[in-house]
Amino acid sequence: MAVIALTTDFGLTDPYVGIVKGVLATRAPGATVIDLTHGIPPQDVLAGALVLRYAAPYFPPGTIHLAVVDPGVGGARRPICIETDTALFVAPDNGLCSLAAPPERTRRVIHLTEERFFLAPRSTTFHGRDVFAPVAAALATGTLPEALGPAVTDPVRIAVPPVETEPGRLRGAVLYVDQFGNLVTNIEAAQLAAFPRRAVSTTIGGVQVRGIATAYADVERGALLALIGSWGLLEIARRDGSAAAALGVGVGAPVVVEGRTT
Amino acid sequence: MAVIALTTDFGLTDPYVGIVKGVLATRAPGATVIDLTHGIPPQDVLAGALVLRYAAPYFPPGTIHLAVVDPGVGGARRPICIETDTALFVAPDNGLCSLAAPPERTRRVIHLTEERFFLAPRSTTFHGRDVFAPVAAALATGTLPEALGPAVTDPVRIAVPPVETEPGRLRGAVLYVDQFGNLVTNIEAAQLAAFPRRAVSTTIGGVQVRGIATAYADVERGALLALIGSWGLLEIARRDGSAAAALGVGVGAPVVVEGRTT
Amino acid sequence: MAVIALTTDFGLTDPYVGIVKGVLATRAPGATVIDLTHGIPPQDVLAGALVLRYAAPYFPPGTIHLAVVDPGVGGARRPICIETDTALFVAPDNGLCSLAAPPERTRRVIHLTEERFFLAPRSTTFHGRDVFAPVAAALATGTLPEALGPAVTDPVRIAVPPVETEPGRLRGAVLYVDQFGNLVTNIEAAQLAAFPRRAVSTTIGGVQVRGIATAYADVERGALLALIGSWGLLEIARRDGSAAAALGVGVGAPVVVEGRTT
Repeated sequence: MAVIALTTDFGLTDPYVGIVKGVLATRAPGATVIDLTHGIPPQDVLAGALVLRYAAPYFPPGTIHLAVVDPGVGGARRPICIETDTALFVAPDNGLCSLAAPPERTRRVIHLTEERFFLAPRSTTFHGRDVFAPVAAALATGTLPEALGPAVTDPVRIAVPPVETEPGRLRGAVLYVDQFGNLVTNIEAAQLAAFPRRAVSTTIGGVQVRGIATAYADVERGALLALIGSWGLLEIARRDGSAAAALGVGVGAPVVVEGRTT
Repeated sequence: MAVIALTTDFGLTDPYVGIVKGVLATRAPGATVIDLTHGIPPQDVLAGALVLRYAAPYFPPGTIHLAVVDPGVGGARRPICIETDTALFVAPDNGLCSLAAPPERTRRVIHLTEERFFLAPRSTTFHGRDVFAPVAAALATGTLPEALGPAVTDPVRIAVPPVETEPGRLRGAVLYVDQFGNLVTNIEAAQLAAFPRRAVSTTIGGVQVRGIATAYADVERGALLALIGSWGLLEIARRDGSAAAALGVGVGAPVVVEGRTT
Repeated sequence: MAVIALTTDFGLTDPYVGIVKGVLATRAPGATVIDLTHGIPPQDVLAGALVLRYAAPYFPPGTIHLAVVDPGVGGARRPICIETDTALFVAPDNGLCSLAAPPERTRRVIHLTEERFFLAPRSTTFHGRDVFAPVAAALATGTLPEALGPAVTDPVRIAVPPVETEPGRLRGAVLYVDQFGNLVTNIEAAQLAAFPRRAVSTTIGGVQVRGIATAYADVERGALLALIGSWGLLEIARRDGSAAAALGVGVGAPVVVEGRTT
């Protein structure tokens, strides 16, 4: 039984997600449809790409990811399907799936040109309904990616802002702020491995946070802490509160980690 | 396998939608339950009716639409089931399903009086749980509409505010504002067909928008545009932004389209 | 076919709920997963406990409730499974499920120590993904609770604030405020039974509401009313509006009911 996971910036107030699910139920009635999230900030392709990168590994092998964050809908951007070693991605070609589907794991990228798989007539504003959902349904019911159009050799890729490394210092940035106000940075656990946990200090929003905690419970209620979060990235959090609100910072805010290297 | 689609103004913060799904899972365990939306503005029957009208055609034939926007719950309004040529609607008799189920496509309307299909005891405030969900579950498991009560000959109907047409001019209004701030009007694509796309101008919120665009990508970032949206209606949008915020207008705002007729 | 119902404070903006569902789809592909709600206020264990108490009875027998409101994640609090006469609860041991699983209906409480059922590696911040979801999946696929760890004899219990009763007077409090602004109190219908409906007056936020209405429709639009809500508790509501906004009160606000006892 096929699994189709949905990642969009449609939100849940409007009927757009429901309409996509109606198309899927019509064309792939046996599929299991799972909402990964519809809360990507509107048109924020990088946020969508990060969510897919860190969430997709928890889905069953063969999952069809239908992902729509599509500021270029109706324009020249291509609709594509990416087949990796573990999953299929159906999305606009704007980098949205490029972090979850890195080149070394990609088997093929297909330009979705076979219009017989689309709804007709096709709008210029809602390709989630008219293009991506019916294509995902086709894949869920056994259509092979290569039947959907020609191969693409130059899919759009986006990059996570890099961490700058100096002796005893890492300069990164906030990548994602969740609803709890946790600040997820681009600094990976492996990059911190050279620093002893206790000797590390993290500076963000003009405040210095000492050490790398193991869990929220390591600090007192209301205190700030730095820890390795569930994505394997350095996070700045506030126990029982919002670090984002306490520090007044958001996506893009610089983060500096300092410490003696071992 | 039956499909039950849910449309309510319950929102997703409270457990009300979850409780309805618990009732459905108890009484119709094999059914596929799909959220169309729970984001209808509280007690806004017209918004719910519009959503059902434009979304229902994308659902599988035979879908059971369980729809609850019910300011009159516990009062004299009747609970009804409408059977059309393609779907079943279970809802309060306040016009909520009347745009999706127009008279010419309606086979029968039933007043839900057979209390043996309801939960007992029955509250006066949550008929979604106590009346509509168990009736939808009964339909999903093979109960025929005519077993649920007597026929109704005068269901409540609501109307979309009409467009006033004059030579070279259409006077309409904003019907729906989505989360992106797109302004969906009551002016249908067919009504615009007489105007050449380039010669049209649309006035809303004191601003004149020239032409009818084909897609968002036709204009620069931040610019306003008029286009035929995914519901087949004239929409005023702002590329990569909110037209509602830019123009300071909402539902009911007047929209005037002018142009030389061909 | 197992039913897994999810109750969390994760919200729906982030991918956290989607990731939990990915784990469930991977490890229990046949299960039916239902969102009870993800809108519990962050870290509000009592609100989660109330929702589970009033919602769980509407779910099918045997439902596995995966419930995560977990301010102590990563600390010393135990992960547990509670088996009652009708359901299973997988949750942190902080009282979250204690109102839905009272002692007289509890068969066993298990401390989840068998790490082979968890994801590896295991984070310290997201046990919904790494501990509770895989354990719920194990239960859904036939693992018995007693295989998951040793018995617990002292699970954490939380109490609903009690109603103070005096002759002709009840002193309670607002327990829960829903999205419509309805104020759900801790005063049960049975406690009001001694008062004649018409002679009762309810004081809240400095305002006196006379009588106990049967339904919203009993009063004029915009008027306040007191009624027995869908949880069997006294509610203060405002017809077609928000009682919370009108009265400027929230959770914890005192409510006094007075009347001649019969």
